Amino acid sequence: MIKEKGILFILSGPSGVGKGTVRKKLFEEELDLQYSISMTTRDRRTGEVDGVDYFYKSREEFEKLVKEGELLEYAQYVNNYYGTPRKYVEETIEKGLDVFLEIEVQGAMQVKKNFPQGVFIFLFPPSLEELKNRIVNRGTESQELVLNRLKEARNEIEMMDAYDYVVVNDQVETAVDKVKAIIKSEHLKRERIAKQYKQILEDELS
Amino acid sequence: MIKEKGILFILSGPSGVGKGTVRKKLFEEELDLQYSISMTTRDRRTGEVDGVDYFYKSREEFEKLVKEGELLEYAQYVNNYYGTPRKYVEETIEKGLDVFLEIEVQGAMQVKKNFPQGVFIFLFPPSLEELKNRIVNRGTESQELVLNRLKEARNEIEMMDAYDYVVVNDQVETAVDKVKAIIKSEHLKRERIAKQYKQILEDELS
Repeated sequence: MIKEKGILFILSGPSGVGKGTVRKKLFEEELDLQYSISMTTRDRRTGEVDGVDYFYKSREEFEKLVKEGELLEYAQYVNNYYGTPRKYVEETIEKGLDVFLEIEVQGAMQVKKNFPQGVFIFLFPPSLEELKNRIVNRGTESQELVLNRLKEARNEIEMMDAYDYVVVNDQVETAVDKVKAIIKSEHLKRERIAKQYKQILEDELS
Repeated sequence: MIKEKGILFILSGPSGVGKGTVRKKLFEEELDLQYSISMTTRDRRTGEVDGVDYFYKSREEFEKLVKEGELLEYAQYVNNYYGTPRKYVEETIEKGLDVFLEIEVQGAMQVKKNFPQGVFIFLFPPSLEELKNRIVNRGTESQELVLNRLKEARNEIEMMDAYDYVVVNDQVETAVDKVKAIIKSEHLKRERIAKQYKQILEDELS
């Protein structure tokens, strides 16, 4: 009945908070959601498909797109660029589909600047102790790196003010249910849909 | 973990849209919600309990409370006043409980003025045709009254702009699920809870 645009949802939070776990669980349940496909300059691996796993670009192409404002956010890891292409997000939303982006806090802040109409969800650790355990228990990192990560996590939590919602990741199922409620209710916001409803009213009166 | 205040939710919409049905179904499922208890000047009937069914007041007392701004909304029906007492709502919310108020559009507009921090949900008819059928099928009313009700319904739909959310009442179960998602997600809004989360952060760092 109502032709509505999709919404870009951004799930973010300090490293170690469990963003990936919540996202995976959500995607097992929520089939109407499109996972945001990143753009990268890294080589395509066997089995990967352009436009499915990533959008593959040369360094030159990527930098040109950055200059043109075509990346909602980007970062460099191990000499390769990774970013979120504006065009893919906008086209998907235009089709009426929601896009879901799971991303580090720094990247989320870039998206906030370039796409403020997104809905920003901050995943909060059940406790800093718990967050520390999660970071430490990755096990592969030196103590110094762990301490740095913890400091960074605290700084990231301070950035909560830029977000629309805060979800505690105490239990993954509960957190996923909350994210689902946010997705559902955002589609019910009057400012998104009042125009279409009024159109219905006009149509039925004419 | 988090000590949070409750929220006043207002469900409203044109007459005949099915507000009462949605509210009843919601209360079968949602046990954490307090139904807003009205204040009235009508006589207490056998079996009714003051402070449970209604708060019973004399006409004089009621009018004094209106003057003192103690009613979030009120109206007169058949020579009796009915209204929503501010004190009950505020005290319940202070305890951390949500209050749910199902009310006509005119009353909702009064609440909006007196308690703008409430969350206003507009129940929208699946179609005007359907709304007409519901109004007509009450069966007890003259054609003129039916036409007036329809006109009024159209005017009430125009008032949608004052609301936070719009929920179509096409199927009562779907509408109830949507209202539940709104209730859940409103509690996750950053501006409601960020302060408490930052307190946790401070406490755990000290």
